[in-house]
Amino acid sequence: MNDEKKGLTRRDFLKATGGATALAGAAAGGIFLSSSDSSAAELPKKWDEEFDVVVVGSGFAGLAAAIEAKNSGCSVTILEKMRTPGGNSIINGGIVAAAGSPLQDREGIKDTPELMYEDMLKAGLGLNHPDLAMTVAEKSNEAVQWTINYLGVQYKDRVAHLGGHSEPRSYTTYNQSGSAIVRKELDKVRSLGMNVRTQVFLSKLLTDGDGIVRGVKIHEGYIFPKADSGAVKNIKAKKAVVLATGGFGNDIIFRSIEDPRLTKDTGCTNQPGATAEGLINALRIGATPVQLSWIQLGPWASPDEKGLGISPIFAVYSAFPYGVMIDPSTGKRFVNELADRKVRSDAIIKTGRISIGIADAEGAKHSSHLMDKMLKRGSVKKFDSLEKLAAEYKINIQGLKETIAKYNQFVQEKNDRDFGKPIRNDAKQLIQPPFYAMRLWPKVHHCMGGVQINKSAQVISLDHVPIPRLYGAGEVCGGVHGACRLGSVAVPDCLVFGRIAGKKAALERSWA
Amino acid sequence: MNDEKKGLTRRDFLKATGGATALAGAAAGGIFLSSSDSSAAELPKKWDEEFDVVVVGSGFAGLAAAIEAKNSGCSVTILEKMRTPGGNSIINGGIVAAAGSPLQDREGIKDTPELMYEDMLKAGLGLNHPDLAMTVAEKSNEAVQWTINYLGVQYKDRVAHLGGHSEPRSYTTYNQSGSAIVRKELDKVRSLGMNVRTQVFLSKLLTDGDGIVRGVKIHEGYIFPKADSGAVKNIKAKKAVVLATGGFGNDIIFRSIEDPRLTKDTGCTNQPGATAEGLINALRIGATPVQLSWIQLGPWASPDEKGLGISPIFAVYSAFPYGVMIDPSTGKRFVNELADRKVRSDAIIKTGRISIGIADAEGAKHSSHLMDKMLKRGSVKKFDSLEKLAAEYKINIQGLKETIAKYNQFVQEKNDRDFGKPIRNDAKQLIQPPFYAMRLWPKVHHCMGGVQINKSAQVISLDHVPIPRLYGAGEVCGGVHGACRLGSVAVPDCLVFGRIAGKKAALERSWA
Repeated sequence: MNDEKKGLTRRDFLKATGGATALAGAAAGGIFLSSSDSSAAELPKKWDEEFDVVVVGSGFAGLAAAIEAKNSGCSVTILEKMRTPGGNSIINGGIVAAAGSPLQDREGIKDTPELMYEDMLKAGLGLNHPDLAMTVAEKSNEAVQWTINYLGVQYKDRVAHLGGHSEPRSYTTYNQSGSAIVRKELDKVRSLGMNVRTQVFLSKLLTDGDGIVRGVKIHEGYIFPKADSGAVKNIKAKKAVVLATGGFGNDIIFRSIEDPRLTKDTGCTNQPGATAEGLINALRIGATPVQLSWIQLGPWASPDEKGLGISPIFAVYSAFPYGVMIDPSTGKRFVNELADRKVRSDAIIKTGRISIGIADAEGAKHSSHLMDKMLKRGSVKKFDSLEKLAAEYKINIQGLKETIAKYNQFVQEKNDRDFGKPIRNDAKQLIQPPFYAMRLWPKVHHCMGGVQINKSAQVISLDHVPIPRLYGAGEVCGGVHGACRLGSVAVPDCLVFGRIAGKKAALERSWA
Repeated sequence: MNDEKKGLTRRDFLKATGGATALAGAAAGGIFLSSSDSSAAELPKKWDEEFDVVVVGSGFAGLAAAIEAKNSGCSVTILEKMRTPGGNSIINGGIVAAAGSPLQDREGIKDTPELMYEDMLKAGLGLNHPDLAMTVAEKSNEAVQWTINYLGVQYKDRVAHLGGHSEPRSYTTYNQSGSAIVRKELDKVRSLGMNVRTQVFLSKLLTDGDGIVRGVKIHEGYIFPKADSGAVKNIKAKKAVVLATGGFGNDIIFRSIEDPRLTKDTGCTNQPGATAEGLINALRIGATPVQLSWIQLGPWASPDEKGLGISPIFAVYSAFPYGVMIDPSTGKRFVNELADRKVRSDAIIKTGRISIGIADAEGAKHSSHLMDKMLKRGSVKKFDSLEKLAAEYKINIQGLKETIAKYNQFVQEKNDRDFGKPIRNDAKQLIQPPFYAMRLWPKVHHCMGGVQINKSAQVISLDHVPIPRLYGAGEVCGGVHGACRLGSVAVPDCLVFGRIAGKKAALERSWA
């Protein structure tokens, strides 16, 4: 790179964009009108209930916010529109990135928040809001240690190496599910004297004439997705509202406005309640939308299961790190199986064919605890020989044999000369029958976009200043991940900003 | 492609997303609350002025809307925040795509709206709203003929072949500037008894308690960019408001929220008034944001001129179609010089070096009318020999000579075997001194994102229904171009939707 180079370093980003505070400063003397000009909303004459902090959403982020607010001495209510708590988090894969963790130390892996940040920006194509991405990277280890030491979450004793991460840095819950974290958060919520109020729908964020968030209008006894179901109530938020309503991956109308390719025919890994109303409520009161059209597809999804399913476990723990993914028409690999999600999903779609992920008996050990279940479902299949495997999926057998011979050489040399996949130290040649395989086609998985927040989890208005008394955390917010979220960074994102939101909300001064 | 193919055809798109009407239908029984729930805004007790139609913005789109509304019998006022009319359109390059035009017929070029639509979707990475893109493609020729037959705009007598278009289909105004169109629109505006009111800033779209747009709050005598300058007035819109306020390419704060790479250090081809207030005003009253993070960089921009400058004329008409673009460190080409803007800009940025565009005496003829001016500025330079040219820009001369020898062979064979650039019939080998060259580094050029509209140019709300009495046209709207706008499709976009907006606004029933 010569002196003409225009690439931007992190320092440039921070200097130039400077986070919301600097933006607000710049705007103050600038072209934007103040929010005092915004239309006066009507507050209810009488509130049905009141709490210091109202948390909307009961996934990783909402529960973390509730716990922190409660521990700061607040009265807290947690609202959940679905019949059961946990949102999308409870069906999450339970993999949690943490940079510079004790588990990494034990394995001799050198890692830093800066390295994780660089990985996030590389995957995010530089669209990440630098201060938000750095906040998650810096606090990722603290967040996972909080789940261990404070919540009692149990993890496996090895760090996983996920696609797009330059080092193995991801904790995996003992049951390979986010439920291991959500259940412990729910236990803590209960032990602190709170509960999650299910079937309560946020129908409006209530603001006063100055645009300050004063409470929420809800439908109690709401039956998803019936807009008019449930009884209307108004809850006063004496300190703040925390919006933790998640992504809109299952909102077919909203997602296809932002990305018209994602019609109803595209699969989705999310729970049915992953719809856009929470986000839309924030936009209605002037929250700034960020990067809504970046919607992530998961490359490890099976067209033979509904939703997320369980076979992604085979893809992520066996086929991708210890095996190969091939195009059946050629029998050839076509991408680094550990590239980031966007690269892999785009590559699969470009082939125009459902890809096949393959591991041998050795590789399959890494997903052995669920293998019986996956085999029973038929989303993963087992074969005595490569020939039988090839016959089942109509794979070009000559191409496949060449691919595997070549790949085995790469394993021996610890160097993937074709696609640069990092070969793990414990990787073995693909020779040991039985062989296992699954079909792969991307599904809608994560919404990178959402409302703008700053490092303090304050939701930012179209005037480039915080909307008073409104905090946001988790997938409803945009900017942390830029164009593409790395696997296992969703959980630290939710936990870090959920905790910040809860603590900051508690610091607001109560109003009469 | 086998039966597993998941690529989407236009038919799939239309069926699945179905435009805003279908979306609204789907939403009606769905999860979204009606806009009657939106907060009541206060309308002024007394209006200072009233018109049937209030047009905000005086570029291609706003002026076309005003002309159509006036011709439909409406009283119309046209508001422009800057000191002079024309917005960004008046400094636009004056190239206008039209599919199936008389000029194409004369040159024996077979072209259809469907082919233009496919080109738009290919460049747009499939993110285009299909109904909007098709509307522009279908009405592109009608729009350009309207400028000729009704406005009297003069064009050159050959169609240009711009990057990303599968056929030559672009008209070029006689002076290679959008001013040739804007000036004629302004003449027509005056002859119809209207005028453009400059230094009038839209500070608010005024809605009633039902969310219906009833008028605008303005600052008259506004001095850009001082938010508080000018006298406040309220103008009643008896039929509708047309928002044609353009893009936000020069709004450093807003653009860096959506794409943090585009800090103040990134150049911009737009006029200073290309800021986000118009868009933000629409978002404030609940317009749906679409794909705001897709901001286009122009690959033909010179770092040796401010703003758009004039040397892009050399790049677009000489170096790219009749010459080469090379990386000086290698002397090699690295991209199809006629690929779409995103592909080329990304490719330049990836090299990390300012690229050099080169043409010989033959190629330079196609930009000869501005050559003296460009040479005087020094943004384009002239050399007796390739050696001298290479010395000036520190180009690897051996690599350059090889590149040109190879390229000349491609010209002879009419086949660019390296990058697949379509070689024009009149292309000649690069051998004729003097040689001309310019430096190239991308600048912010166009905002693909904006508010959602439907085929009738109605702005769509977060409830997925039209915001009553609000129309949008031009760069303030999103969806037409998806991820990347093709060169020369901005003008038809603005003219087509401007005209639709004006006509549809005129059909609204007046209110008392």
